[in-house]
Amino acid sequence: MKKLKRSARLVEMTQYLLSRPHRLISLTAFADRYQSAKSSISEDLAIIKEVFEDEGIGELHTLAGAAGGVKFTPKIGLEASLETIQTVCRQLEQPERVLPGGYLFMTDMLGQPELLSELGRMFATAFAGREIDVIMTVETKGIPLAYATAACLNLPVVIVRRDNKVTEGSAVSINYVSGSNKRIQTMSLARRTLREGSRVLIIDDFMKAGGTIQGMMDLLGEFNAKVAGVGVFVESGELGTEERLLEDYVSLAKVTAVDLKSKQTMVIPGNFFK
Amino acid sequence: MKKLKRSARLVEMTQYLLSRPHRLISLTAFADRYQSAKSSISEDLAIIKEVFEDEGIGELHTLAGAAGGVKFTPKIGLEASLETIQTVCRQLEQPERVLPGGYLFMTDMLGQPELLSELGRMFATAFAGREIDVIMTVETKGIPLAYATAACLNLPVVIVRRDNKVTEGSAVSINYVSGSNKRIQTMSLARRTLREGSRVLIIDDFMKAGGTIQGMMDLLGEFNAKVAGVGVFVESGELGTEERLLEDYVSLAKVTAVDLKSKQTMVIPGNFFK
Repeated sequence: MKKLKRSARLVEMTQYLLSRPHRLISLTAFADRYQSAKSSISEDLAIIKEVFEDEGIGELHTLAGAAGGVKFTPKIGLEASLETIQTVCRQLEQPERVLPGGYLFMTDMLGQPELLSELGRMFATAFAGREIDVIMTVETKGIPLAYATAACLNLPVVIVRRDNKVTEGSAVSINYVSGSNKRIQTMSLARRTLREGSRVLIIDDFMKAGGTIQGMMDLLGEFNAKVAGVGVFVESGELGTEERLLEDYVSLAKVTAVDLKSKQTMVIPGNFFK
Repeated sequence: MKKLKRSARLVEMTQYLLSRPHRLISLTAFADRYQSAKSSISEDLAIIKEVFEDEGIGELHTLAGAAGGVKFTPKIGLEASLETIQTVCRQLEQPERVLPGGYLFMTDMLGQPELLSELGRMFATAFAGREIDVIMTVETKGIPLAYATAACLNLPVVIVRRDNKVTEGSAVSINYVSGSNKRIQTMSLARRTLREGSRVLIIDDFMKAGGTIQGMMDLLGEFNAKVAGVGVFVESGELGTEERLLEDYVSLAKVTAVDLKSKQTMVIPGNFFK
């Protein structure tokens, strides 16, 4: 890279950090990249840090010492999150979203890259402190959420399939009971996608009783993998606590009531905001 | 937002533009946001533009006049793309990737957010000039590629399902023949996910004869929607041209030979590089 002026270097460093979240970059690497003294780099990083933290973009952590460097952790502020989720709740309450069985249509919302990116930053904020090796979801609608979160946390994604496709190689399959409708279903994960002992963050779009997520946890057991956390976009709060299969999860929104006749729904912010 | 110093403003403007691709932002909006004169904003934009274009991050287009403003178009340079794809080709040639039927295991690669982001930028570069309303893919493995492309182009994604789930509402289904193995399969798209007359970019992970993509095109016909382009990550070049169902597509990599016995594969850069 050609030597840049101070102002251009700030622009380049900003984009460099933003596209490499959760990755330690040494001051030496920056100094080499920009052919500048470490002291100048440190000054630039201080400016970037202040803007990122003031504007709720994320945190910039500096680790001192020979193995030290700087790491960008994408975050989103509580206020900005709540504003987004309030809008999401109002959208989810639109009567035309009520589907047979009391489900809510939300496929369109999970197709919006900017909303997904914000939701991903919320999950990344919720799970920033956990030790995670990989993010897992089950096809289909959880996939974009899992990737949006993975992009913020710089982690790979594995997708649990509801079939067993030839292009996945050998796979482990389990049967599970979807908690709310009591149907037995199958899910499978390709052998070579998950290492033994991995710490796994489970992300999904919707949770009623939690049967699907419980199924993913059982599948993790087959790989000797550990659950590092569970995040769901929308949880259904219509169940009694005794019907809920799991307790420890983060939800961004919660459906508290669906009236199939009047098509009236009530959606409130999830436990992420508690 | 509090008034920022010049250096901090450059950092903030950089992140603001990067997170809002393909969106026109007026100079007035910037001037208000930063409580600065339009002339200062213009100077800052000139610096950002130079860095973005020199470093192959993308283009910054300035539209003059009252309705004018600035628009960031993410792109990736040919050299950087080719370097990434050469690495991808070498990885795809690993003998342990050869699966029964001559398929290549590539699920792990499609689970890496940074690679996906680069592949998305390649598709965004290939289709930057087209008029597109929405990106479409079929579950499952094309989904992350579609979202990575959508994030660069600031477009929504619709996912064609291989089943018809209750949480999608009413849907249009078609049967199609997967070109290479001649099996009849079904795909469906929820009625309310796609507007009539939409211009659609189809993105998928793998194309052999093109039967699945032809199926998506037929489905688009049911919505009176138009195909604005077709992009595939890997195409199989083992077929004769007469077997190929479509001609106009962009591929990033091409499998030219798979030997099931020796597990030797040859993968070369796709027609994006021609």
